[in-house]
Amino acid sequence: MVIVMKPGATEEQIQHIVNRLHEFGLREHISKGEERTLIGAIGDERVLRSIPLEAMPGVEKVMAVLAPYKLASREFQSENTVIKVNGVEIGGNKIVVMAGPCAVESEEQITIISAAVREAGALILRGGAFKPRTGPYSFQGLEDEGLKLLAFAREKTGLLVITEVMSPQQVDLVAQYADILQIGARNMQNFMLLKAVGQTRKPVMLKRGMSATIEEFLLAAEYILSQGNHNVMLCERGIRTFETYTRNTLDINAVPVLKQLSHLPVIVDPSHGTGRRELVAPVSKAAVAAGADGLIIEVHHDPENSMTGDGAQSLLPGQFSELMGELQKLAEAVGRSI
Amino acid sequence: MVIVMKPGATEEQIQHIVNRLHEFGLREHISKGEERTLIGAIGDERVLRSIPLEAMPGVEKVMAVLAPYKLASREFQSENTVIKVNGVEIGGNKIVVMAGPCAVESEEQITIISAAVREAGALILRGGAFKPRTGPYSFQGLEDEGLKLLAFAREKTGLLVITEVMSPQQVDLVAQYADILQIGARNMQNFMLLKAVGQTRKPVMLKRGMSATIEEFLLAAEYILSQGNHNVMLCERGIRTFETYTRNTLDINAVPVLKQLSHLPVIVDPSHGTGRRELVAPVSKAAVAAGADGLIIEVHHDPENSMTGDGAQSLLPGQFSELMGELQKLAEAVGRSI
Amino acid sequence: MVIVMKPGATEEQIQHIVNRLHEFGLREHISKGEERTLIGAIGDERVLRSIPLEAMPGVEKVMAVLAPYKLASREFQSENTVIKVNGVEIGGNKIVVMAGPCAVESEEQITIISAAVREAGALILRGGAFKPRTGPYSFQGLEDEGLKLLAFAREKTGLLVITEVMSPQQVDLVAQYADILQIGARNMQNFMLLKAVGQTRKPVMLKRGMSATIEEFLLAAEYILSQGNHNVMLCERGIRTFETYTRNTLDINAVPVLKQLSHLPVIVDPSHGTGRRELVAPVSKAAVAAGADGLIIEVHHDPENSMTGDGAQSLLPGQFSELMGELQKLAEAVGRSI
Amino acid sequence: MVIVMKPGATEEQIQHIVNRLHEFGLREHISKGEERTLIGAIGDERVLRSIPLEAMPGVEKVMAVLAPYKLASREFQSENTVIKVNGVEIGGNKIVVMAGPCAVESEEQITIISAAVREAGALILRGGAFKPRTGPYSFQGLEDEGLKLLAFAREKTGLLVITEVMSPQQVDLVAQYADILQIGARNMQNFMLLKAVGQTRKPVMLKRGMSATIEEFLLAAEYILSQGNHNVMLCERGIRTFETYTRNTLDINAVPVLKQLSHLPVIVDPSHGTGRRELVAPVSKAAVAAGADGLIIEVHHDPENSMTGDGAQSLLPGQFSELMGELQKLAEAVGRSI
Repeated sequence: MVIVMKPGATEEQIQHIVNRLHEFGLREHISKGEERTLIGAIGDERVLRSIPLEAMPGVEKVMAVLAPYKLASREFQSENTVIKVNGVEIGGNKIVVMAGPCAVESEEQITIISAAVREAGALILRGGAFKPRTGPYSFQGLEDEGLKLLAFAREKTGLLVITEVMSPQQVDLVAQYADILQIGARNMQNFMLLKAVGQTRKPVMLKRGMSATIEEFLLAAEYILSQGNHNVMLCERGIRTFETYTRNTLDINAVPVLKQLSHLPVIVDPSHGTGRRELVAPVSKAAVAAGADGLIIEVHHDPENSMTGDGAQSLLPGQFSELMGELQKLAEAVGRSI
Repeated sequence: MVIVMKPGATEEQIQHIVNRLHEFGLREHISKGEERTLIGAIGDERVLRSIPLEAMPGVEKVMAVLAPYKLASREFQSENTVIKVNGVEIGGNKIVVMAGPCAVESEEQITIISAAVREAGALILRGGAFKPRTGPYSFQGLEDEGLKLLAFAREKTGLLVITEVMSPQQVDLVAQYADILQIGARNMQNFMLLKAVGQTRKPVMLKRGMSATIEEFLLAAEYILSQGNHNVMLCERGIRTFETYTRNTLDINAVPVLKQLSHLPVIVDPSHGTGRRELVAPVSKAAVAAGADGLIIEVHHDPENSMTGDGAQSLLPGQFSELMGELQKLAEAVGRSI
Repeated sequence: MVIVMKPGATEEQIQHIVNRLHEFGLREHISKGEERTLIGAIGDERVLRSIPLEAMPGVEKVMAVLAPYKLASREFQSENTVIKVNGVEIGGNKIVVMAGPCAVESEEQITIISAAVREAGALILRGGAFKPRTGPYSFQGLEDEGLKLLAFAREKTGLLVITEVMSPQQVDLVAQYADILQIGARNMQNFMLLKAVGQTRKPVMLKRGMSATIEEFLLAAEYILSQGNHNVMLCERGIRTFETYTRNTLDINAVPVLKQLSHLPVIVDPSHGTGRRELVAPVSKAAVAAGADGLIIEVHHDPENSMTGDGAQSLLPGQFSELMGELQKLAEAVGRSI
Repeated sequence: MVIVMKPGATEEQIQHIVNRLHEFGLREHISKGEERTLIGAIGDERVLRSIPLEAMPGVEKVMAVLAPYKLASREFQSENTVIKVNGVEIGGNKIVVMAGPCAVESEEQITIISAAVREAGALILRGGAFKPRTGPYSFQGLEDEGLKLLAFAREKTGLLVITEVMSPQQVDLVAQYADILQIGARNMQNFMLLKAVGQTRKPVMLKRGMSATIEEFLLAAEYILSQGNHNVMLCERGIRTFETYTRNTLDINAVPVLKQLSHLPVIVDPSHGTGRRELVAPVSKAAVAAGADGLIIEVHHDPENSMTGDGAQSLLPGQFSELMGELQKLAEAVGRSI
């Protein structure tokens, strides 16, 4: 951390900062410029994050040298994390596709869709049992019944199951049925929930919050990692910008950035990331080309009658199958398989 | 709702939409333009929000006529909601000031600060017992002990207490100690939590999410209202934009917009909304001038030693007291008191 | 256009709107709902854009049915525009790569770089003679001398030349030297400049403004098209968001969206779009996978000594050559060549 | 400037950076931390802005200590700039109000409106002769005729005149008629235009670009100042965010921030900043409370028939007059006059 003092800062003010650094076990390095004095803090500056250095007399600004996360960083672990879950590897050479409906709606629905996505080459079934909905008057999911239907579909198809968990109390229940726990974008900074899933050893897919910077995203992952659960994958699902044509702006740049800054697998959600069915295929391809380790795609055999209103972004099984064929070629073109 | 059909939409496609409207108890009004047919849905269009009309064949786009929230709207209730809580009115002519530290840290700290803010004219004491923190390695609040200290300060000063509740399970506990429950910005779409506080009858201050539109903000309020709790106040606390000089961009426009669209009281948080101490006074004044019903301001007697790192945005008691004097004049200039 | 009247709108207010529509040669279609009356305007609603319908008594809101641009739309021209410029086709099956330095700096520099990018497979040389710089104290380009050096490099290599024009008076001069005129992002709404290039018949590459919506981007293209110049290509180069890790957020979603809404060729600029050298390759690949018709990439043989400070995003010739090989495979995987 | 080297940076790489600093007349200050070496550049770091330090081997990141602008900074000039123009002072204790139509439309129109705003207390008449319009099919202003009408209105009312200049060639012409030259938001980074107005000695009002940071805004002002024209005032007019209810998000925080960072007067445009008539009054009041030195407000006696479609944000003369009365009280409450 570098503390920039104001032009007229006094010796006393400088010494005061130095004393604070010492209290925290850090050493100082002072550099007197023409107008300003700079104080470098030597040691693990993360301990300083909770002191309001900016509030101290004579301080102009504080510049962080280190990233605030540690366990999630590529510096901490240089090789890629590969998560192994019941025979499927996430983060390895093979790109993993998760597919299924927005919400589990009925036995018939989940049976049809799970068979279709398996046939097309998906390895993991997605489907919400608990649904976070913007409005209180919308369908909120089948809850426990939805979890049972997911387990039933797993049994019939051999697909693994990923589903969302929305509160700390649900963690045990959902963990009984799911192979991977999903934390939704709206809960990326629900810290009680992050700690709760961090205390399990289930793989967790953490979605990026709508207005979360990459640094905040990795800090949220750090919450889970710091509880001892190392099976974390990151999911880019679109950020909020001024553009309204797409529901969100899928941030393709985040894919290589996350791969560079972190060792964790990176998944892309083109369905929520764009909110428009006709964009799912081109954006899925872009994600594979940019280096994503997986995709999570909404598929529905009868989107018009889906209960979540998200049908507008679901692919039909035939469209999904066609896309899988195209992704195959792209995966090969970047030296991977799918 | 107006459904715009694509230029070449068939009669069958149009009829299909009409049939769906009928299923939901709505009537249609069809308007054939030169290139496109428009179908107006007559009746309460909110029932259509959960059907993916955009996904239906022949549909180009769907335009909502009504706001998706109802109970929160000025159309539903034309007169202002005035929340009465233990002798204090929020939403009336008098502007209410809530002040105190970011987090409760000790008996000494809360005693000093609560006395100071009361002396300066605040009516409500703020202070976090449970703290949502971006990083896992930061101080997370005194928890139960913090609640007790708040109750202790209330007893000594007569101030009411507002404090944050972070998960559904905490609601009962926090409600025992607090006069007003606060939902933080990161939890604005934590729907389980919204429902839980909606089932109490405690006043709730709901903070706007960092990337929430005004419509989403009012929909989140609707969640609480729809459970039967009508004591909801809205808090503008800054949105995320590209500007990095301020931590957030306090959206002053939201104050008159919320007052026009809704009957609920509007509070402004200039401390988190700007993240910089030197901006708290001018932005507080702007909020009063723009029509806010209240302010929530961080005050700390020793910000340098505050445990949350938020000291950089806290006013000293003397600064707060001076600001209160200035706000008094502004309140009078807009025909109100403070 | 659909005009939504307020709940209590009077017959007189409705009739007033209808009269205004008639003045503009439009017909009305009135739909009385339970609470609100809707007035549909039948005819080319674009004439209404310059009347403040929202300002009229009784009007709640106005919803546009048609896009405000016409010549740029896929509806106006269903087949792709293919721009032919001195033997190179832009917008056809072959993906076109433009490459070169940020700014032309010297004969030696442009000679080395143009030879290298030609060798690697680029067809068009980029290089700024006039440079828009955020600060007044930075290198502003070699100006006329820079144009001559570009023409010199064209002669030696056979590459076409694209370079930026910054003001209406420069258009004639730049058009003498360049094969393609570039309008920079900061000038996307410099309407005097758009008209000036619209009056030439030179191909124009229009860059998306940093905070321009896709609709505004296409409207800016419409300015050029409306002057009779149909040789317009669109360039996505990153938008401004809250994320600061990348200089801009390259909006990959815009590629398929623009291809769907418009018939104009779409180019992607991964160098300015990300601002970081290590992201140029993955984002270039994503652009090809998403359907871009071309790329514009910064290449410098000695980035450390480049005069624009943009060296941090320039590829070295060897890196560019390697990228071209990888793009080849991706182009084939999506059924195109490069 | 502080250059942070990567963990494994070699002595040679460090020495290379040091040599570059020496070339630019700067001295170095090296601080070896536990994992990283930091190199502080001592001297006027602005000269380094044009070297791609990030591109040099071994460099992890570069952190600026100084703001990139100088003449615009409060550090360069501590007392407020007060611009004196024909008897009116801008930037002093008295808050200055500029008012008038979006565009000059006719002699009758400008006569009625200028008389009304003068009567209500405005000192400066606004009105566009050249209009930047998003679409090519809209009214583009009366041009020269519009300038003459402004001069005519000045003669009749004694108001000063502010009007927009859109290209370098127009500067001389507009300067003949206007007392203050306005640079529109879309031209904030039209550097040719900034230089051109910088070479006059006319007062210039520079509007903040829709996606310009405060730093970029002050850098644009620096362009004008660096040409020798010191009569620059800054105008906050709303930034682009994800919120769509208002056309732009007026950034009230920018008012105190600009006053702290710079000595230049700060004007606020609530009409374009919100795009909605009903928000002009509350946001104008907020601006005065936050410390603005002036306001620029659209007024039209017949907004429905205004030719620019901006009628939806224009106040009627009666509304403007009422607002002026309210602003008077607010100005007094903050120790100023209007």
